[in-house]
Amino acid sequence: MRFTSEQRLDDGVLERGFTLGEIPGILWTPGSASAPAPLILLGHPGGLHKMYPRLVARAQHSAAEGFAAATIELPWSGDRPRSAAAQEARADLRRALEAGEPVDDEIVDRLVLPLVEKAVPEWRAALDALLSLPEIGGPVGYAGGVIAIGIRLAVVEPRISAALLFAGSFVPRILFEEARQVTIPLQVLLQWDDEGNDRQMALDLFDTFGTKEKTLHANMGGHTGVPQFEGDGNRFFARHLK
Amino acid sequence: MRFTSEQRLDDGVLERGFTLGEIPGILWTPGSASAPAPLILLGHPGGLHKMYPRLVARAQHSAAEGFAAATIELPWSGDRPRSAAAQEARADLRRALEAGEPVDDEIVDRLVLPLVEKAVPEWRAALDALLSLPEIGGPVGYAGGVIAIGIRLAVVEPRISAALLFAGSFVPRILFEEARQVTIPLQVLLQWDDEGNDRQMALDLFDTFGTKEKTLHANMGGHTGVPQFEGDGNRFFARHLK
Repeated sequence: MRFTSEQRLDDGVLERGFTLGEIPGILWTPGSASAPAPLILLGHPGGLHKMYPRLVARAQHSAAEGFAAATIELPWSGDRPRSAAAQEARADLRRALEAGEPVDDEIVDRLVLPLVEKAVPEWRAALDALLSLPEIGGPVGYAGGVIAIGIRLAVVEPRISAALLFAGSFVPRILFEEARQVTIPLQVLLQWDDEGNDRQMALDLFDTFGTKEKTLHANMGGHTGVPQFEGDGNRFFARHLK
Repeated sequence: MRFTSEQRLDDGVLERGFTLGEIPGILWTPGSASAPAPLILLGHPGGLHKMYPRLVARAQHSAAEGFAAATIELPWSGDRPRSAAAQEARADLRRALEAGEPVDDEIVDRLVLPLVEKAVPEWRAALDALLSLPEIGGPVGYAGGVIAIGIRLAVVEPRISAALLFAGSFVPRILFEEARQVTIPLQVLLQWDDEGNDRQMALDLFDTFGTKEKTLHANMGGHTGVPQFEGDGNRFFARHLK
């Protein structure tokens, strides 16, 4: 991991850009931290530049409660090289949605599974690097979309102790099955009136998670209208990461 | 309203028993209140003695955030006179449940509608009396079951500014219709794994509420296992009553 930029935000939070091999990322650490801070990995749908305003707001809310936060660019997003297969799957998805057709499992698999397969090891490598910094301690939480990435991480990465998952993206059948194996505490956010989201699928997925300590928070406000009081998950992470 | 008892709890909260005509009730006020406190009405399924441990815990959590809390006995519960019609409806309900039969709308109507018709004016009379006390100010919230009572109160009582409703009791069709008229902020608690609860009905009811500012919190833990971090609704009421 190599730091490429550093700035102090208004509230004292230290924001540092980094690269991990070819992967760009951002680390935010609280302005005043006496001990190594617990870490929240900020998931997002890809495109760090575009997502930056929302990510920095989430990071600053987390830092206010003493959490460090970090994110990395997703494969084939932002400034990273594109994948022809991913672009084709995305075009097929768009065609199905525009035609008002149901989206084939096959399209969802082509779109999401390669992303999960590539992104999860990258998140784990980022975790290795971040946890080697003296200012970062455990435990670690994952917060955000892509929910399929969150599910796989929750199953395979024992250093992740709790996850706040944003319902809404497409979930391949195989990850539905993996959801049964999730045993860490979960909070699932669902935008109830998000027309682009399959509400029943989100409720079924919540039901499927194997953990006994799961909470669903459904709110109004449309796809991007997650209320500010929900978005950071600070109370949830304070219960499980401190 | 006549105060009948008074005690100071460990945390300084003042607990006073009262009667309003023939109706017993309890009022809790924060130990240190500089200004009139906003008030939370604590709904419950009836039986103040039996419910006392849970009610006092909720009241103490609310008082810690500066809220007063109050409750009254439901009609035909606790030490109040019984209703033959209500006992008959309850027996019919029990028979249907024990036989594993679907519960007729007609039984639900006989069980719940007279309760709503009688309890709601009593809650409003209690509100008149409570708001006349110098230590109680507005605004007012309603928290708890019976959800049908909460719906009617939210529709007819303009002094109630926000409601935290516990899903789980039977809801007559007519109150489903009234739910469309609810426009105050709502938080609905649903115990996801409560076998005695019709989960789909609770989700349908949440969908029906007319208010744009509604949040559903679903948790595990069975019928009586509402997690402590949910039960008081302090964050919700802090947003809407302060």
